[in-house]
Amino acid sequence: MAKKKRILVLHGPNLNLLGRRQPEIYGRLTLDQIDRRIRALARQLGVEVETRQSNNEGELVTWIHEASGRFGAIVINAGAYTHSSVALRDALVAVGLPAVEIHISNIHKREDFRRRSMIADAVVGQIAGFGVNSYLLGLRAAVECL
Amino acid sequence: MAKKKRILVLHGPNLNLLGRRQPEIYGRLTLDQIDRRIRALARQLGVEVETRQSNNEGELVTWIHEASGRFGAIVINAGAYTHSSVALRDALVAVGLPAVEIHISNIHKREDFRRRSMIADAVVGQIAGFGVNSYLLGLRAAVECL
Amino acid sequence: MAKKKRILVLHGPNLNLLGRRQPEIYGRLTLDQIDRRIRALARQLGVEVETRQSNNEGELVTWIHEASGRFGAIVINAGAYTHSSVALRDALVAVGLPAVEIHISNIHKREDFRRRSMIADAVVGQIAGFGVNSYLLGLRAAVECL
Amino acid sequence: MAKKKRILVLHGPNLNLLGRRQPEIYGRLTLDQIDRRIRALARQLGVEVETRQSNNEGELVTWIHEASGRFGAIVINAGAYTHSSVALRDALVAVGLPAVEIHISNIHKREDFRRRSMIADAVVGQIAGFGVNSYLLGLRAAVECL
Amino acid sequence: MAKKKRILVLHGPNLNLLGRRQPEIYGRLTLDQIDRRIRALARQLGVEVETRQSNNEGELVTWIHEASGRFGAIVINAGAYTHSSVALRDALVAVGLPAVEIHISNIHKREDFRRRSMIADAVVGQIAGFGVNSYLLGLRAAVECL
Amino acid sequence: MAKKKRILVLHGPNLNLLGRRQPEIYGRLTLDQIDRRIRALARQLGVEVETRQSNNEGELVTWIHEASGRFGAIVINAGAYTHSSVALRDALVAVGLPAVEIHISNIHKREDFRRRSMIADAVVGQIAGFGVNSYLLGLRAAVECL
Amino acid sequence: MAKKKRILVLHGPNLNLLGRRQPEIYGRLTLDQIDRRIRALARQLGVEVETRQSNNEGELVTWIHEASGRFGAIVINAGAYTHSSVALRDALVAVGLPAVEIHISNIHKREDFRRRSMIADAVVGQIAGFGVNSYLLGLRAAVECL
Amino acid sequence: MAKKKRILVLHGPNLNLLGRRQPEIYGRLTLDQIDRRIRALARQLGVEVETRQSNNEGELVTWIHEASGRFGAIVINAGAYTHSSVALRDALVAVGLPAVEIHISNIHKREDFRRRSMIADAVVGQIAGFGVNSYLLGLRAAVECL
Amino acid sequence: MAKKKRILVLHGPNLNLLGRRQPEIYGRLTLDQIDRRIRALARQLGVEVETRQSNNEGELVTWIHEASGRFGAIVINAGAYTHSSVALRDALVAVGLPAVEIHISNIHKREDFRRRSMIADAVVGQIAGFGVNSYLLGLRAAVECL
Amino acid sequence: MAKKKRILVLHGPNLNLLGRRQPEIYGRLTLDQIDRRIRALARQLGVEVETRQSNNEGELVTWIHEASGRFGAIVINAGAYTHSSVALRDALVAVGLPAVEIHISNIHKREDFRRRSMIADAVVGQIAGFGVNSYLLGLRAAVECL
Amino acid sequence: MAKKKRILVLHGPNLNLLGRRQPEIYGRLTLDQIDRRIRALARQLGVEVETRQSNNEGELVTWIHEASGRFGAIVINAGAYTHSSVALRDALVAVGLPAVEIHISNIHKREDFRRRSMIADAVVGQIAGFGVNSYLLGLRAAVECL
Amino acid sequence: MAKKKRILVLHGPNLNLLGRRQPEIYGRLTLDQIDRRIRALARQLGVEVETRQSNNEGELVTWIHEASGRFGAIVINAGAYTHSSVALRDALVAVGLPAVEIHISNIHKREDFRRRSMIADAVVGQIAGFGVNSYLLGLRAAVECL
Repeated sequence: MAKKKRILVLHGPNLNLLGRRQPEIYGRLTLDQIDRRIRALARQLGVEVETRQSNNEGELVTWIHEASGRFGAIVINAGAYTHSSVALRDALVAVGLPAVEIHISNIHKREDFRRRSMIADAVVGQIAGFGVNSYLLGLRAAVECL
Repeated sequence: MAKKKRILVLHGPNLNLLGRRQPEIYGRLTLDQIDRRIRALARQLGVEVETRQSNNEGELVTWIHEASGRFGAIVINAGAYTHSSVALRDALVAVGLPAVEIHISNIHKREDFRRRSMIADAVVGQIAGFGVNSYLLGLRAAVECL
Repeated sequence: MAKKKRILVLHGPNLNLLGRRQPEIYGRLTLDQIDRRIRALARQLGVEVETRQSNNEGELVTWIHEASGRFGAIVINAGAYTHSSVALRDALVAVGLPAVEIHISNIHKREDFRRRSMIADAVVGQIAGFGVNSYLLGLRAAVECL
Repeated sequence: MAKKKRILVLHGPNLNLLGRRQPEIYGRLTLDQIDRRIRALARQLGVEVETRQSNNEGELVTWIHEASGRFGAIVINAGAYTHSSVALRDALVAVGLPAVEIHISNIHKREDFRRRSMIADAVVGQIAGFGVNSYLLGLRAAVECL
Repeated sequence: MAKKKRILVLHGPNLNLLGRRQPEIYGRLTLDQIDRRIRALARQLGVEVETRQSNNEGELVTWIHEASGRFGAIVINAGAYTHSSVALRDALVAVGLPAVEIHISNIHKREDFRRRSMIADAVVGQIAGFGVNSYLLGLRAAVECL
Repeated sequence: MAKKKRILVLHGPNLNLLGRRQPEIYGRLTLDQIDRRIRALARQLGVEVETRQSNNEGELVTWIHEASGRFGAIVINAGAYTHSSVALRDALVAVGLPAVEIHISNIHKREDFRRRSMIADAVVGQIAGFGVNSYLLGLRAAVECL
Repeated sequence: MAKKKRILVLHGPNLNLLGRRQPEIYGRLTLDQIDRRIRALARQLGVEVETRQSNNEGELVTWIHEASGRFGAIVINAGAYTHSSVALRDALVAVGLPAVEIHISNIHKREDFRRRSMIADAVVGQIAGFGVNSYLLGLRAAVECL
Repeated sequence: MAKKKRILVLHGPNLNLLGRRQPEIYGRLTLDQIDRRIRALARQLGVEVETRQSNNEGELVTWIHEASGRFGAIVINAGAYTHSSVALRDALVAVGLPAVEIHISNIHKREDFRRRSMIADAVVGQIAGFGVNSYLLGLRAAVECL
Repeated sequence: MAKKKRILVLHGPNLNLLGRRQPEIYGRLTLDQIDRRIRALARQLGVEVETRQSNNEGELVTWIHEASGRFGAIVINAGAYTHSSVALRDALVAVGLPAVEIHISNIHKREDFRRRSMIADAVVGQIAGFGVNSYLLGLRAAVECL
Repeated sequence: MAKKKRILVLHGPNLNLLGRRQPEIYGRLTLDQIDRRIRALARQLGVEVETRQSNNEGELVTWIHEASGRFGAIVINAGAYTHSSVALRDALVAVGLPAVEIHISNIHKREDFRRRSMIADAVVGQIAGFGVNSYLLGLRAAVECL
Repeated sequence: MAKKKRILVLHGPNLNLLGRRQPEIYGRLTLDQIDRRIRALARQLGVEVETRQSNNEGELVTWIHEASGRFGAIVINAGAYTHSSVALRDALVAVGLPAVEIHISNIHKREDFRRRSMIADAVVGQIAGFGVNSYLLGLRAAVECL
Repeated sequence: MAKKKRILVLHGPNLNLLGRRQPEIYGRLTLDQIDRRIRALARQLGVEVETRQSNNEGELVTWIHEASGRFGAIVINAGAYTHSSVALRDALVAVGLPAVEIHISNIHKREDFRRRSMIADAVVGQIAGFGVNSYLLGLRAAVECL
């Protein structure tokens, strides 16, 4: 399958706890269950996805670097790093792949510090607030960017 | 068709100019063409949509009021009023319908005054930056809320 | 009855939903029921009132203009426009009638954006937080200004 | 007379100078004359009032404490302490009596530092700008809270 | 007369009260008298003008839309909406006609909230503070833009 | 017992209401019960304590002055004055005794105005959020400073 | 001696510790020694002075009230209350006596919170930074105001 | 020619470089060419103008002083000093001549620091954004002030 | 020993340099010596502690995740990450263990950027300023939370 | 006369207009008359003064440089440059002479931009608001610094 | 070669992409090519350099720790971490080696968030904007610090 | 020697005092000694330099203007004017010569007002904190720009 048909899905810090962590905000699905849904939709849309999770800002930066030439687009839920990481922002700009920023919760109606996304101006667009569906909508959006 | 299967799509000020207005930002489709795509997807998803556009804040408020009892969800691109209208926010909260906020451009990488959405905490979630696709993703998200 | 004995009561956006809208904040009376109570008190105080509601900022501005020469005072619940409308403020200053600003909820203990009233320096005073009673106290205050 | 029928009226710093102090802002009635009007209205409304004045923040705090169990509501013009006193705010919250915040002048159209009320979120509502009438309207509002 | 020789003059909210409203700030001429002076100068400069006034933000937006193809330039006194209307700003950018922003009073020496013009970066330039003469200078400036 | 072995424990405004005041935040122990626990721990640690409470900023300032030469350290819960009192701050600096700032609730996760301590740079350290245990930990910390 | 020849010198919180408190900032003279110097200069200038110190904001307010009719001018070192007390400001405005604000240290080169004087717009002028000499210069300034 | 018929045109720092400096912003005319156009219009309007340029804030201040009694009005393009010079502001207020503030570019749509004019509240009005025409419109405005 | 009796002590970035790093601020004990004191107190209090240090934000996040089910409480000195890490905050909230935030120095009297703790609203309380004793007091506080 | 007995009095921009400029703020004495009063008091105090005025920031900087070794102290009314000039501040720090900052008007009760003195932390103290008397008090203060 | 003659050159996140990443901002040299130039200049200056790159904040912190005793100075391009990392700042302060902060681009003319360097007050000086030459100038500056 | 080989070195206000002024910050070399070192390095690098110093903002502006056509690059230490001068910024942009901004001290770790450089976006890059070496590194950087 050509690189252009491959999409990298990145999960940032604490997302490995999904299902256990504040289910009233983040839902009851585990990260594995979410990844399975993402892969199911990917198959349906005729693209290949690879999903990875890290709690480490530097590792996420490195994975974005490595996506260059191997993937056609990125779906990223940068979690807590969304609000502070210039490094992720610079990495996304540097590799130049179309990226879709997603959030499980609606970050625009939570604490003030969650309202600002540092990576917003390095991505095509943002989807926030639809639970696991944010990933699925994000995957659709990414496919459109291929 | 039951109310729960009907979705109201609201276009705010200046969106009647789509296709003519800054196409490098807002794309080359006219509002009519966009509405046709929305309706096509709606049919595919088995829901009914009604689309309306107004340049008038008060009229948009009234339409949201009238949606209560007639629609099951709202997809709203409040345009310029997104950033200042407490009235739209209060209207959405008052009717209590699930609403999806969408934006054609990625408001988070434009002027500072476009980064704040006054209606954000009255909606389920926000989708921004995917051109006409923002509407289509928004419709999918709204259908999930029915 | 002389103009000086007539008071205009203006209801701003979303107030037509009273009774339906967040009753824990705005109470369970409908706008009609509130208007009836206002009229009852007016009769008791020997003044005539006219009540109007609009979701439209421009219409409220126009009604304030028209009050000049026909009413002796204004009681205004500008709703959401309280917090952003320079136009209402300028209209009130322009007609020069004594005006009383009222709010059903205590705007000073809600969201930050509700704490600032743009019309405050165009009115005699402000009454906020007493539910429907805010209107009745406001009417008494307006009568004192005649 | 039952406690529920008793209302404490508190005057904060400098209000003992009323009548002498900037009459163009605060009116020409002395505090005694105002207290007499308050008592007259109280009799008419069938409640008992007690009025006290202090220039001392700590004393006002203590009086609020002592009101618990002896009064059914508080009308408070905290004067200058309105804008800075966390202690008064905490005292009002602690005793849990319904309280009405009043101001002789319209604090929302004076200096910036007068626009913020620290006690606002510890009271039912606020009445400002109607001169001595602010007290009388405040008494009516307090009676409704009994 | 060719479209390029036609200029639309828009008056925003409250300007219908000119002559009656705070004459020490806004002068003693009525809007009719001002319009007559504008037309007189237009004849002298060999252009045609059309003048309109609305208190309604949405109506002003619509008129700007309609100017496209019918007028060669716009002179706009957006009044109170100057300071808050993203919708007017977007409308002016969308139609792409040269526009001149004018103000009767010098908005830069009044209240803080009047110092910021939201439409400033959608216009060629701004003229403020010269009373009715602001309109006449604005007309001259607009003619230069044809 | 030498002065160096004596510790002054100061309770600021509204702390006399402990046990009655918002027990979900401040706990169910009265000030007397807290003082007894403090004295019990003091005996165990071999120091003498004196506890005082005042609602009056000036009185607290004066007590700090008087501590000089009579006590070896101060444990202070300045309550509401924590957030505004330059006078308490200056008093603590002036007498130069080691002081421990304590708070029953975690002031860093409450209202914004509670996050700033004006006395913080006049004390050795701060302990906040452990209920009555904040006093006991504070006493231990103060004993270390003797 | 006529009232017009009498000057009230007020010392605010912590000034009773002068000589003991941070002598590198506030000098080595005690308050008594300073008062003696003030009285010596007063005699030389042919005026009578009365000096008072309080740590209590309310007491300072009351003393300002009582000065009306008994003194011709006030010299005030409001100490820590300078930076927060609206009550002192209102008291000075209310009594209308010419007042001179003085500070021992140069408040404009210390912590940020000391740079703002709340009482500044209630006084004729301000003298800061000259140690005990600030009082003596302030007395001269006050005598000029008689 | 009487003083009242004479107008001083002041050019601030860097304006001597006009024609050379960022022509896409400031146009291609040199200062000499602009001055010639100003003089031509002056003749047409029946007034006399004198034009001066300085890079030196103090010299501009002095020229404003000297205008008193010799000129009837001032047209000033203060250039970079517009945004910081309290001295120019004070000079304009001190001499009390009607002054018109002009800018070649539309300062309200450039960098943030150019949006604030320190001299705005010392002038009759402001004209910005019309290139050399700003001077000509400014001259017309000044003539109206004579 | 049951999980409920086990406490995880986390040391953030640069704390491995303790003893070498600015001893006037952070004291002269090495991290090893501190850990030994913590363990000694733990034995005395009848709990088991495990101590870990990392300079890596992601590793600290992961350790907090792993604490779930293995420890009954956390004592955390997040060092520099205290002031910026949303990820640590979210991790603490996600695992839901009682946590005690401690700081060797009094962060409230150092640089402005150290005054804000991002993790404050994810912990029970905060102890700052007592050197190594902050850890010991923090351990006592954590034991109370078991 | 020894250098230590010589005082340089500097007048900043626009002060040459004294007597003509806003006499309700700056008084009716001309600069010459003020200088004469300064010299008279100097003689009485046994010191020599030299007074200079400049509208030019750079010239004032140079005069401060030249004062080194020739004067024992400086009295400076920096006028408008007070609020923006880092250069004057640095010059005063560089020469290290004791300096007294004076202002004719009380800058602390005028526009916000006049409340901040950039030179404040380069001077011994500040005297503001006493008209010409500010100079005389400043001279006395400077003599004390010799 | 003695430690004092060894310099550690640290490259922060994303710098491994140099040559590929936004060459119009960061130039066309790869990190390897830059490192070769640095080493060439080092030889010429008679010092030894070691260069390392990491995308990981914690790893950079650890490398700074390890430099202590092994290097005489540090040249650091902290990349995106420059603007947020208190940990890097604390690490540099802790080891106490002279450090030179360099940036390839002129961070002072890019986005606002790049203007603030968190590490600035832990380094000797800063060099920004000279492309690869920033490293070479930084190396010269570091050699001077040995 | 061709213009392209000539570099203008500008010293701003107070730099004529170098060696005398706060040597702990600015070093012990006089401006003459620094200029000699600059010239020595220039000879070594095969370029010609001219150095000038002024305390006058306008004169510095004029010198920048005159550099056009006579010099190939500028090295500028704008001293205090760095932080406020829009005029210097505009002059540098207008002449379009490559310029290098240098500072003797590290302005990023001094007072807040020194952290912002107004000229930063008119220069190639900035070098700060290396004492006289800042000039020498700046000269090297400028030579690279020729």
